[in-house]
Amino acid sequence: MQPLKDRIRAEGRVLPGNIIKVDGFLNHQVDVQLLRAMAKEFRLLFPQKDITKILTVEASGIALAAIAAEVFGVPMVFAKKAKSDNIEGGLYQSDIYSYTYKKKVTLLMSKQWLTPHDHVLIVDDFLANGEAIRGLIEIVEKSGATLTGVGIAIEKGFQPGGKIIREKGINLQSLAIIESAEENNIVFRE
Amino acid sequence: MQPLKDRIRAEGRVLPGNIIKVDGFLNHQVDVQLLRAMAKEFRLLFPQKDITKILTVEASGIALAAIAAEVFGVPMVFAKKAKSDNIEGGLYQSDIYSYTYKKKVTLLMSKQWLTPHDHVLIVDDFLANGEAIRGLIEIVEKSGATLTGVGIAIEKGFQPGGKIIREKGINLQSLAIIESAEENNIVFRE
Repeated sequence: MQPLKDRIRAEGRVLPGNIIKVDGFLNHQVDVQLLRAMAKEFRLLFPQKDITKILTVEASGIALAAIAAEVFGVPMVFAKKAKSDNIEGGLYQSDIYSYTYKKKVTLLMSKQWLTPHDHVLIVDDFLANGEAIRGLIEIVEKSGATLTGVGIAIEKGFQPGGKIIREKGINLQSLAIIESAEENNIVFRE
Repeated sequence: MQPLKDRIRAEGRVLPGNIIKVDGFLNHQVDVQLLRAMAKEFRLLFPQKDITKILTVEASGIALAAIAAEVFGVPMVFAKKAKSDNIEGGLYQSDIYSYTYKKKVTLLMSKQWLTPHDHVLIVDDFLANGEAIRGLIEIVEKSGATLTGVGIAIEKGFQPGGKIIREKGINLQSLAIIESAEENNIVFRE
């Protein structure tokens, strides 16, 4: 998606450790007009009329998922990250490894808000190693809902998450796939 | 705001410890159409044309703040909660006490995204003891930006946050103020 790629080229910063910083428009300060354009692109990429829920995980995926939910005309649900071992009942859980915090994190979703009747589109801002998306897919599977696909804003194509998800036969669509990132030279996959 | 109050009465659950659970439409599953109506109400309550930023804090305020930002035609910024003591430079910080997690939490905001030129509307989903809002106000003060006001979805009027903020002379507007909450009997302030 060209407007997103242009914005990454213009404002993204490449930090040591293959970190691509886009916190001026995507995940700290957020350009909601760009998010609206991205949400409309997801609607074109996922035209299925039976989608009933947009699913994401806190925190930085929420803004994009909320605006996508409005475009799709369905509710948004977001998995929470467990803050303690004191977890109440009635929840779907999935343990993932957080590369950001270098520790195990448990994703939680109330069973009330995801059921076997749901058709789910997962939306998130970033895909790198794919742990968060793997956890969300596991929660969808546990709920018995149907996974329609996964929509990502920025995929780091040089990390394994995208390949792993596509090899499962899941319909993964990323609006920008970064093939390589060096200072002043960000290359996108065509 | 009547549609929000109706929804709280219809679907809100009162749990021991004065917890009001609205996770079917506000902070776990999210009804984005209701959020859009709430954002338009904020626009009526805060008609100031010089607002440049909507500010919130992760995680559950982000959806409402994102849609409010679209209605106001400005970017949204959200303060992050520190996950470690390893905090980089270039950040405004504010220490708050989290009643949810029963510990100190540090709010962080990059200095890049809040400047003395900004006029800021703070938006959040809940106001109870007011610690999160106190932290956001402190960050606005540290940045030198102008605080236009604070817009809240649900204020727990029987907890001190609202009174403390109003006594500072800050323009605080809550779309629903709950005066008392018992099972099957939620009373709103008129």
